[in-house]
Amino acid sequence: MSMTPQVRQILANYESDNPGSKANLARILLQGRLGGSGKLVILPVDQGFEHGPVRSFAPNPPAYDPHYHFQRAIDAGLSAYAAPLGPLEAGAATFAGQIPLILKVNSANTLTATKDQAVTGSVRDALRLGCAAIGFTIYPGSDQAYAMMEEIRAMAAEAKAHGLAVVIWSYPRGGSLSKEGETAIDITAYAAHMACLLGAHVVKVKLPSAHIEQPEARQVYEKQKIAVDTMTQRVAHVVQSCFNGRRIVVFSGGESKDLEGIYKECAGIRDGGGNGSIIGRNTFQRPRAEALAMLDMIVSIYQGKAYNTDANKKLQAVPGHAA
Amino acid sequence: MSMTPQVRQILANYESDNPGSKANLARILLQGRLGGSGKLVILPVDQGFEHGPVRSFAPNPPAYDPHYHFQRAIDAGLSAYAAPLGPLEAGAATFAGQIPLILKVNSANTLTATKDQAVTGSVRDALRLGCAAIGFTIYPGSDQAYAMMEEIRAMAAEAKAHGLAVVIWSYPRGGSLSKEGETAIDITAYAAHMACLLGAHVVKVKLPSAHIEQPEARQVYEKQKIAVDTMTQRVAHVVQSCFNGRRIVVFSGGESKDLEGIYKECAGIRDGGGNGSIIGRNTFQRPRAEALAMLDMIVSIYQGKAYNTDANKKLQAVPGHAA
Amino acid sequence: MSMTPQVRQILANYESDNPGSKANLARILLQGRLGGSGKLVILPVDQGFEHGPVRSFAPNPPAYDPHYHFQRAIDAGLSAYAAPLGPLEAGAATFAGQIPLILKVNSANTLTATKDQAVTGSVRDALRLGCAAIGFTIYPGSDQAYAMMEEIRAMAAEAKAHGLAVVIWSYPRGGSLSKEGETAIDITAYAAHMACLLGAHVVKVKLPSAHIEQPEARQVYEKQKIAVDTMTQRVAHVVQSCFNGRRIVVFSGGESKDLEGIYKECAGIRDGGGNGSIIGRNTFQRPRAEALAMLDMIVSIYQGKAYNTDANKKLQAVPGHAA
Amino acid sequence: MSMTPQVRQILANYESDNPGSKANLARILLQGRLGGSGKLVILPVDQGFEHGPVRSFAPNPPAYDPHYHFQRAIDAGLSAYAAPLGPLEAGAATFAGQIPLILKVNSANTLTATKDQAVTGSVRDALRLGCAAIGFTIYPGSDQAYAMMEEIRAMAAEAKAHGLAVVIWSYPRGGSLSKEGETAIDITAYAAHMACLLGAHVVKVKLPSAHIEQPEARQVYEKQKIAVDTMTQRVAHVVQSCFNGRRIVVFSGGESKDLEGIYKECAGIRDGGGNGSIIGRNTFQRPRAEALAMLDMIVSIYQGKAYNTDANKKLQAVPGHAA
Amino acid sequence: MSMTPQVRQILANYESDNPGSKANLARILLQGRLGGSGKLVILPVDQGFEHGPVRSFAPNPPAYDPHYHFQRAIDAGLSAYAAPLGPLEAGAATFAGQIPLILKVNSANTLTATKDQAVTGSVRDALRLGCAAIGFTIYPGSDQAYAMMEEIRAMAAEAKAHGLAVVIWSYPRGGSLSKEGETAIDITAYAAHMACLLGAHVVKVKLPSAHIEQPEARQVYEKQKIAVDTMTQRVAHVVQSCFNGRRIVVFSGGESKDLEGIYKECAGIRDGGGNGSIIGRNTFQRPRAEALAMLDMIVSIYQGKAYNTDANKKLQAVPGHAA
Repeated sequence: MSMTPQVRQILANYESDNPGSKANLARILLQGRLGGSGKLVILPVDQGFEHGPVRSFAPNPPAYDPHYHFQRAIDAGLSAYAAPLGPLEAGAATFAGQIPLILKVNSANTLTATKDQAVTGSVRDALRLGCAAIGFTIYPGSDQAYAMMEEIRAMAAEAKAHGLAVVIWSYPRGGSLSKEGETAIDITAYAAHMACLLGAHVVKVKLPSAHIEQPEARQVYEKQKIAVDTMTQRVAHVVQSCFNGRRIVVFSGGESKDLEGIYKECAGIRDGGGNGSIIGRNTFQRPRAEALAMLDMIVSIYQGKAYNTDANKKLQAVPGHAA
Repeated sequence: MSMTPQVRQILANYESDNPGSKANLARILLQGRLGGSGKLVILPVDQGFEHGPVRSFAPNPPAYDPHYHFQRAIDAGLSAYAAPLGPLEAGAATFAGQIPLILKVNSANTLTATKDQAVTGSVRDALRLGCAAIGFTIYPGSDQAYAMMEEIRAMAAEAKAHGLAVVIWSYPRGGSLSKEGETAIDITAYAAHMACLLGAHVVKVKLPSAHIEQPEARQVYEKQKIAVDTMTQRVAHVVQSCFNGRRIVVFSGGESKDLEGIYKECAGIRDGGGNGSIIGRNTFQRPRAEALAMLDMIVSIYQGKAYNTDANKKLQAVPGHAA
Repeated sequence: MSMTPQVRQILANYESDNPGSKANLARILLQGRLGGSGKLVILPVDQGFEHGPVRSFAPNPPAYDPHYHFQRAIDAGLSAYAAPLGPLEAGAATFAGQIPLILKVNSANTLTATKDQAVTGSVRDALRLGCAAIGFTIYPGSDQAYAMMEEIRAMAAEAKAHGLAVVIWSYPRGGSLSKEGETAIDITAYAAHMACLLGAHVVKVKLPSAHIEQPEARQVYEKQKIAVDTMTQRVAHVVQSCFNGRRIVVFSGGESKDLEGIYKECAGIRDGGGNGSIIGRNTFQRPRAEALAMLDMIVSIYQGKAYNTDANKKLQAVPGHAA
Repeated sequence: MSMTPQVRQILANYESDNPGSKANLARILLQGRLGGSGKLVILPVDQGFEHGPVRSFAPNPPAYDPHYHFQRAIDAGLSAYAAPLGPLEAGAATFAGQIPLILKVNSANTLTATKDQAVTGSVRDALRLGCAAIGFTIYPGSDQAYAMMEEIRAMAAEAKAHGLAVVIWSYPRGGSLSKEGETAIDITAYAAHMACLLGAHVVKVKLPSAHIEQPEARQVYEKQKIAVDTMTQRVAHVVQSCFNGRRIVVFSGGESKDLEGIYKECAGIRDGGGNGSIIGRNTFQRPRAEALAMLDMIVSIYQGKAYNTDANKKLQAVPGHAA
Repeated sequence: MSMTPQVRQILANYESDNPGSKANLARILLQGRLGGSGKLVILPVDQGFEHGPVRSFAPNPPAYDPHYHFQRAIDAGLSAYAAPLGPLEAGAATFAGQIPLILKVNSANTLTATKDQAVTGSVRDALRLGCAAIGFTIYPGSDQAYAMMEEIRAMAAEAKAHGLAVVIWSYPRGGSLSKEGETAIDITAYAAHMACLLGAHVVKVKLPSAHIEQPEARQVYEKQKIAVDTMTQRVAHVVQSCFNGRRIVVFSGGESKDLEGIYKECAGIRDGGGNGSIIGRNTFQRPRAEALAMLDMIVSIYQGKAYNTDANKKLQAVPGHAA
């Protein structure tokens, strides 16, 4: 894939980074069917850690095999594949050089109630496995938030010195946050901003709701007449919070829902100026053919070939696709 | 023992490992009476730490002597012997080169209530004692689970860089887990999966019961019609959770029970595709001759010479053995 | 570029390497117009160090600019670009992610008479610049040969641990070697073999002549009836000396000559089973259009589209090309 | 292979070593057809470095492939395989756990006249490749002798701390030594003794001639009436010089000669109490079947089944073998 | 052995040393038959390195076995045993705790003409072998003298930091020194003084002759009327040069001579205030019984029980000893 103006423009924003980190960002941005467009779709498979194998893989048993996910990410023409140490060790040699890898270097599980994650990988692991980036989750709001920030500070510095890219999953939870507040627009924008402040090259947040959690924030939204009614508006607001678009931000959808819902969200991300989706369970829990068809549609949306807004400002699925 | 297709196939799954770690896995898999079969029986003697010497060794006083266990593992043709630092220091020179050793590098004791273990050995210790692997216990669910995972992350990276193999004992406990839940099938599969995610070469879990602990998991088992009624089914489910069989998984039986029960369990492990047993107290608390006879039967079971399923789908002990 | 059977087969030979080094080899082998074919053409620009700028760049002044070489390597669809620290620092950000880079970590210059090179780059430099490999020159035969081997031993170990590939330029000179002996077939095969013994992933030697330098070697060539009359035979002999083809070997042409001569040499490399060319001065001292045309023909030759042997065992340039 | 009294007795001499080094010595001593006998035959393949590929491998072209040597050492039931870094990297994964490996960590080549070797491997390399030992050459008498001794001092200390065994090739040359003196009995005994003084676990020297190089030594041989007329006497003298047999000593034959000569030498090594042979070129330059037949006879000699001394004190080949 | 005033007084001179180094000096001074007297006899066995095994051990073949020397030093009631790495490794476990060991950390051999020694042991080796001290040779006058001094500087600092004692063998040779000058009284005093200046705890020099090598020194001896005619005077002069007796100094005899000569020299050392003898070849080249008898007499001399000066200022052997 050759360089494009879109990717060149994105890379120019990472002006303090060494060429190694830029090259790894470029590899992700030039990979797959969205390569060169400035959009990206990342496949993360860390649900085995988060929810255990049966909840993650039993709906589609081939997904028990780590090779399945590498192959699916390649076949669907995705931009990168993110996973913890074990699954990358189990396939990184077989698929060497075929798709950029992101080593998820911390992980949580539902058996542990603490709002924290264990560091389960290292920059050295990422290098020996040929990864383009490390991925790290912070829980802004939790009692462990500062400790987690300090962990990623150290790991990000090491990763950047070795020419890797840094992806931060920023998931607010804990403290005085309500359950609804975890995906509130003010909190999501805040979480994305903190990831940028910590030096992330790529930010990953959940798609925000229109709920506003903090009274002080609400006042500002109202006073400044900031519209957050539509997904497109909310995404644009998050993008603005990421250094006015100087940092790549991708979104996850959260709880599984119907295809139509997912497609509309992707269109919202696209139209709000978001860089793409990180989408795991919603694909690998479907049979392979169904998952590939879904990913094909998502790629089409990011390519601007589907779910465009019509003259009536309504989203229109492409002809021939059930929408 | 020369290489066999079974062992070659297992080793091929460790595609990111250096030849040193592969050679040490090969040594274990080619050792003893099950050498080359892809099955293995490991003797662990860490009960002295866990329960103190009198509960561990008084039923069979020769077992107070560390040499006793080395010799028994060799005489019974087992695959490896696992113990903490002290006992290995007490016999590793005498038995140098005779059986692969696994240095158990963390240990708990009943005088301490914390659901944690102390790190009591190092990779350097394993190397100077001529060990093939390090062994480490994690307690998924406990308050210390993340700290334990971070300890083994660092030690596993060092072990792999020095060509050793890594065995993780994954024993769920603590948090909101019920006592019954510690060996529930959903929890055991989850625990085995997490050991794989952490990069274990060999996973060790307890034989699971048919109990399902987590409501969210129960829904999946029911919806997907996953049968976990028989031991064979449950073992197969755990094997699947170990990267679809790409990682070696061995099982312990837990509380001592009658011989017939133990033999049937081994047949279940074998028929479910498990790689073998790790069996300590049940052997060393019996007189030597009795223990050797028991291990002989277990080896026979894994060799497929005993406790096979007959036409009526019932297990049959081999003629000449009391079953 | 997706994986191909040819590349998969080559990567399988690097059985002790971690996935990081494999991925970087794969990146080179999947890059450009020869991507996936198992053949490669590398552009090296270190003549500025070797002969000074005026001798190197004055014949084609745009070549004074480091960006010129990055762009030319990309435009010509080459496999990788190799240069010392300075030029890579001058362009690695602009061209990040567009072509695999090889940091040449030692360099000689004509002002210094010692048959040695200065170490002018590091593995850390390679990582921060986003390189796929380090390149290192040894001078077998020189008084400094052992010291140079000890340097690359240490740097190669560090590079491999960090997931980089290692390219060794093996150029015999010094000691009792005659000038003619430096490119003798026996010496070239020996030099290529030593690079392999030192652990190179990719070996670079000069195209050998039919001269045999060592009397002891001559006896063997004669006794064993080893034909080294044609370039194809000599290349095949060098390939055999590279662990019977288990290591990638590329050739340089040396002194500039006419196009026809260069093309025939490439056909010889191809037909002898060599992996490709490393070609610098012969291209960058020509005007850009001419150089691109030449590289286009070379790529065509490695693709098997030109300079094939006809029924009369004579090389035939493709129709439409002046040969 | 289970422990034997012979091996136990040898291991007892390494009383200051940790169990790791003992276990690796045990692995070598228990390997292959001579396993347990206290005798050993090691296959070294470093002639590619020493003399170049064509002189080494052209007489038997399959030997160009590093896998060939691993396989031959295994098939012939030898005790260990020794080679430089590159060839071990090229096969250590495929043959993991099948035969003890010795990483030759320094190497010379005939293009360089200096009586020195380059350090071309490390203890870390040996560990990641799963080796049982490192091998190192010293040239007592050369200007570089002290520097070489200092290199092996450091590497041996590191190797022993990590549980590896240490093999020293002790080849006198340089200084005031005559060519004949390099294999003189006094010089060979001295060289073997120095390897022991340096802490070698296994000493490798060339089979000594009856020549005595040093006048001061000659006086002692004469005064003490030390007979060094037969190979058996000379080997016994070297064994005595290796701490009176407390260190393992193996012999190479040097320039290729006829089979009968090689067999008689092996009988001499055996009858003089030497521990065995290290035999490379003499085997791998023969076709595989011939080489295996030769190694079969050598093993038989060390097993005491062939070339025993008859009543007339003459060596007798076994019936059915051409002697 | 309990502390004595003599030893207490000696230790008080090492006022800057840590208690570890003092304890190790005390162990040597309290060991054996001279324990507590302030006198000591050390057995060094490094002649195998210096002259090869046959010249060293053939006159008394049991001496080929390293255990022989440990046992003899213990049986003769000596103060310490000094040897290179290999022999200490071969016996340090068997004789652990029975006699203080001195690891000779550099060594020369007669095959190498350079007036230098190779560093063949380390402080870490000395610690793991349970040694009380390291021993190091310097050659004042040689081209390598400064390099050797720098080596012992570093090793002595490390040894002292780890609580070991440091013994320096100071043997002038090379440069403009005549053969006779190597043992001249002015040169010997100078050599001993330099060892003290370098921080040695114990100095070892050869017994000086009455020759004065340096004209400038001769003028002073004459002007100041310093008598160096008798051995007692010369020893007293050397002792004075060792910080006026604040450092322990022991003497070797050099070329073997008759018993009477050796005994008289020891009496001279004793009467001149020297601390004792370091005596190797003169004992181990004799049959064991003879050697033990000789050592018995030497001990008696240092105990003041033999070879005392009578009323006529003549040495008198004790009754019952042949003198």
